[in-house]
Amino acid sequence: MTPYDKDLDRNPANYQPLTPLTFLERAASVFPDHTAIVHGPLRRSYAEFYARARQLASALAQQGIGRGDTVSAVLANTPAMLECHYGVPMTGGVLHSVNTRLDASVIAFQLDHALSKVVIVDREFMPLVQEALALATVSPMVIQYDDAEFTGPAVPTDAADYETFLAKGDPAFDWLMPRDEWDAIAINYTSGTTGDPKGVVSHHRGAYLLAQGNALTTSMAKHAVYLWTLPMFHCNGWCFPWTLSAIIGTHVCLRQVRAEPIWTALAEEGVTHLCGAPIVMSLMISAPAAQKRKLDHKVQVFTAAAPPPEKLLADMKLAGFDVTHLYGLTETYGPAVVNDWHQDWSDLPPAEQAALKSRQGVRYLPLEGLDVLDPDTMLPVPRDGKTMGEVMFRGNVVMKGYFRNPKATQEAFAGGWFHSGDLGVRHPDGYIQLKDRSKDIIISGGENISSIEVEEALYRHPAVEIAAVVAMPHDKWGETPCAFIELAAGQTLDAAALGQWCKGQLAPYKVPRHFVFMPIPRTSTGKIQKFVLRDQARQIAKTTPAG
Amino acid sequence: MTPYDKDLDRNPANYQPLTPLTFLERAASVFPDHTAIVHGPLRRSYAEFYARARQLASALAQQGIGRGDTVSAVLANTPAMLECHYGVPMTGGVLHSVNTRLDASVIAFQLDHALSKVVIVDREFMPLVQEALALATVSPMVIQYDDAEFTGPAVPTDAADYETFLAKGDPAFDWLMPRDEWDAIAINYTSGTTGDPKGVVSHHRGAYLLAQGNALTTSMAKHAVYLWTLPMFHCNGWCFPWTLSAIIGTHVCLRQVRAEPIWTALAEEGVTHLCGAPIVMSLMISAPAAQKRKLDHKVQVFTAAAPPPEKLLADMKLAGFDVTHLYGLTETYGPAVVNDWHQDWSDLPPAEQAALKSRQGVRYLPLEGLDVLDPDTMLPVPRDGKTMGEVMFRGNVVMKGYFRNPKATQEAFAGGWFHSGDLGVRHPDGYIQLKDRSKDIIISGGENISSIEVEEALYRHPAVEIAAVVAMPHDKWGETPCAFIELAAGQTLDAAALGQWCKGQLAPYKVPRHFVFMPIPRTSTGKIQKFVLRDQARQIAKTTPAG
Ligand SMILES: Nc1ncnc2c1ncn2[C@@H]1O[C@H](COP(=O)(O)OP(=O)(O)OP(=O)(O)O)[C@@H](O)[C@H]1O
Ligand SMILES: Nc1ncnc2c1ncn2[C@@H]1O[C@H](COP(=O)(O)OP(=O)(O)OP(=O)(O)O)[C@@H](O)[C@H]1O
Ligand SMILES: [Mg+2]
Ligand SMILES: [Mg+2]
Repeated sequence: MTPYDKDLDRNPANYQPLTPLTFLERAASVFPDHTAIVHGPLRRSYAEFYARARQLASALAQQGIGRGDTVSAVLANTPAMLECHYGVPMTGGVLHSVNTRLDASVIAFQLDHALSKVVIVDREFMPLVQEALALATVSPMVIQYDDAEFTGPAVPTDAADYETFLAKGDPAFDWLMPRDEWDAIAINYTSGTTGDPKGVVSHHRGAYLLAQGNALTTSMAKHAVYLWTLPMFHCNGWCFPWTLSAIIGTHVCLRQVRAEPIWTALAEEGVTHLCGAPIVMSLMISAPAAQKRKLDHKVQVFTAAAPPPEKLLADMKLAGFDVTHLYGLTETYGPAVVNDWHQDWSDLPPAEQAALKSRQGVRYLPLEGLDVLDPDTMLPVPRDGKTMGEVMFRGNVVMKGYFRNPKATQEAFAGGWFHSGDLGVRHPDGYIQLKDRSKDIIISGGENISSIEVEEALYRHPAVEIAAVVAMPHDKWGETPCAFIELAAGQTLDAAALGQWCKGQLAPYKVPRHFVFMPIPRTSTGKIQKFVLRDQARQIAKTTPAG
Repeated sequence: MTPYDKDLDRNPANYQPLTPLTFLERAASVFPDHTAIVHGPLRRSYAEFYARARQLASALAQQGIGRGDTVSAVLANTPAMLECHYGVPMTGGVLHSVNTRLDASVIAFQLDHALSKVVIVDREFMPLVQEALALATVSPMVIQYDDAEFTGPAVPTDAADYETFLAKGDPAFDWLMPRDEWDAIAINYTSGTTGDPKGVVSHHRGAYLLAQGNALTTSMAKHAVYLWTLPMFHCNGWCFPWTLSAIIGTHVCLRQVRAEPIWTALAEEGVTHLCGAPIVMSLMISAPAAQKRKLDHKVQVFTAAAPPPEKLLADMKLAGFDVTHLYGLTETYGPAVVNDWHQDWSDLPPAEQAALKSRQGVRYLPLEGLDVLDPDTMLPVPRDGKTMGEVMFRGNVVMKGYFRNPKATQEAFAGGWFHSGDLGVRHPDGYIQLKDRSKDIIISGGENISSIEVEEALYRHPAVEIAAVVAMPHDKWGETPCAFIELAAGQTLDAAALGQWCKGQLAPYKVPRHFVFMPIPRTSTGKIQKFVLRDQARQIAKTTPAG
């Protein structure tokens, strides 16, 4: 004990749990009339947003929801989803945002596993949730949100109506602060790209820090206008529902990620920022000319979730967008790594710029540690841009752990680092670059082949729209690469030509032995389902003579 | 205990103490070559800055400095002062930045009270420190910093040389993280405007949050260039030594706050931001035309520490500066309140804009609570812009407490709020406005007179450069206002004319009964020493027949 530890304790005047909920309270009190939410013709101010979030909290509290209770949301990117990001934790409850593209059985599993007490459902997804609830053991209260922007049919339901439910709440509700900043704020299931989804529990402290980190790391300024091309169910929209309140920004909601409404919003709502997986950028770029609009301002695009092909990055630059490449996991609240751009890189030839930009980068400000380690020795790999290791995270924006899964939690945190399951290298300048998921790496004759590297070679071919490379069993080599290809509209190409192309770009053992032209299956967050492709490659190997 | 509290504990992978020291580590690893510090012809990169901070920490550790040890710095705004802001806490030690304009006796008091173990002294201030050490009880090790930009004479000294001392340290020193984010990072004595300075202890958590808050609240972007017109000894330069590392900015050092070097730096170093008391703005505005420079970019000026006169705010706007008005105390790490500007206010006439800008405003993002309360009942005053109360703070950027002064600490935190000693009102839109220090308010015939309001009226007169109004004892009314005036260069004015002017602007009982024309005494942070003026007013009252 030092003299500085004496009579200098925490007290109500100098200590409070960190929580992003205070951002909305501030926004509503300082800029009550600023537009918080745009949704079709609807405009909601910060005063209204805050009042409705409190009403929701109040109504949920009346319903018995309190500390540690799970409230599930099966919603599109709508005002209700934003309200849930505040209203649910304002009760002490935990928000469980459900991926709306999942099968009913997976949703049923999540509702049970998360011990869901209330489910708030968009009318569009009611049939899905009804199916899920029929399979589930829990029987949460069901509330239906009837979004004016959804024009599809309604199904019969006993569910409470969202607006009626909310109306029972008090807009001046004295909401609950977390008792501790370590209290859970949300549970999000991973995308299930590599296997069964796990329930990632995040806390108020981390959400506060990552929400601020988003703005700080990317220099987002006051009153930014943010378009919701990223599903909010995907790790709470990477914490942007909270970031926007911190900077008194405007949310532009979007039910469906299609090129036309995106371009319209960019042009008509003055959008300054949007996020999304690379697929969102492809969508924007490959839109028919008639849908594209001339923009009178720069738009910042943050991309993460999957490796952005270099060609796509180059195309986006050409189209006038400022793209920032982020990387993270549900386990890190969304992005926790940024390709922090150096000014002088902008003087390099476009291809070199795209190559630099395809690297995942360096730690976010609130992530204290990021490294590529040998998982056996826990020693850092050399910074040579070649030696592969596992990407590991450490710091205040790493999850509490996996819900009701102490074994997975312990494994994930072994040795004092969070193990991402992503394989990568570290470049001499300290930037990391992903090479593969540990489960996706191809091992051929004892050599590692990065599926991302082979995919990059394929993406460089102008006729290739989407490429995915997986391991195919091989008698002699153990595994060889097998490529699945979606061609760009109106293009034709055969395996021989594509093999020839690859030979010009890759070491011979990395060239795929098989090419399959077909629509590529994706997870509900837009990621390629390599485990499905691997099954298919295994089938092909059985029926094809060894190459 | 809820299911979310089970098997989801803190561990080294998901929890670390918050500390701004990690900002520098990040800056140096991600942008090693970016210019961190400019000082005259000197340019230091982030790699160098970090290496030197670690060397300093290492050398101090060799000297025995560790957790809870105080290291005092009597330095101008130089690279060494920036190094101290990192190097000292990297040992677990606590930085005590000393106001270089203080008397030797006050410095002696501080060194003793802070239990100082090492003093790092700029050559310019060595005579002052020698005098202080002769009076002090402690006998810290003395290190002299020989700044190339200081051209004055040297005095004989046994002190170690800063560069030699630093050279003994290891640039790769494995510096100490705080054990807890509540650990002290700095001690700063208040300005002593209202009485004896108190030793304000701040912690790593608060410094982290306020440093980020500065950037977030004011939308400071990556690579800002920051001019050091604010003394770093004034509550650690309001945490900007740490903010700049968070946004990979550039510090432009400045030994002396004079108009010419300020204008030169603005023009030649591409300065984007600077901070200072209103006196810094007066200095810039009243500089001779020959010293002013044409700027090709907008400069953001953050002002706090004393009420900025409306006229000065209007002049700054005219001169093309973007001024943001901040408010805070040493007890709140510097600014914790911001005059958060509304876009539509910019359409108002200039005088109305200046009036709106002279309000102190609303809470910073990391300050959870700000209110104007009746200190007796602890109830908020009505939001009428009229009823006065005491401004109170609550949240994570409020100090740990006063060092070795549990009584003052308890008083300051009574009722769960930090009592600022500032009197203010709350406007209908929630913005607070200071009216006076509790010790400066004038009570005349039972009516409160805000000295700031009377000063505002005086400032509006074109011949008035500085105005300060204090209470003068009065047989009948108890107190009446007495005004001290510094006239602008080349102006003449007498008491009668100024009295007449005031009658046109103020209720009769608020018009000063006496005017004294003289140079106005200031504290070492540039604040007017009203207690000196009050003494003088008391003398005048004794010798003058009641008016
Ligand atoms: N910028 C990026 N570049 C490459 N891959 C990325 C990038 N950003 C995210 N990813 C991938 O996404 C993963 C995180 O995704 P998420 O947490 O949504 O679930 P998932 O890992 O796909 O699913 P599961 O953990 O259930 O297998 C990362 O581990 C990484 O493999
Ligand atoms: N924007 C502002 N407008 C008016 N006054 C301000 C502003 N910013 C700061 N102040 C004044 O400065 C005070 C804080 O100053 P500081 O902590 O440096 O010491 P001090 O209060 O002047 O000295 P002491 O506490 O020893 O009397 C505030 O309490 C307030 O009175
Ligand atoms: Mg995963
Ligand atoms: Mg004070």
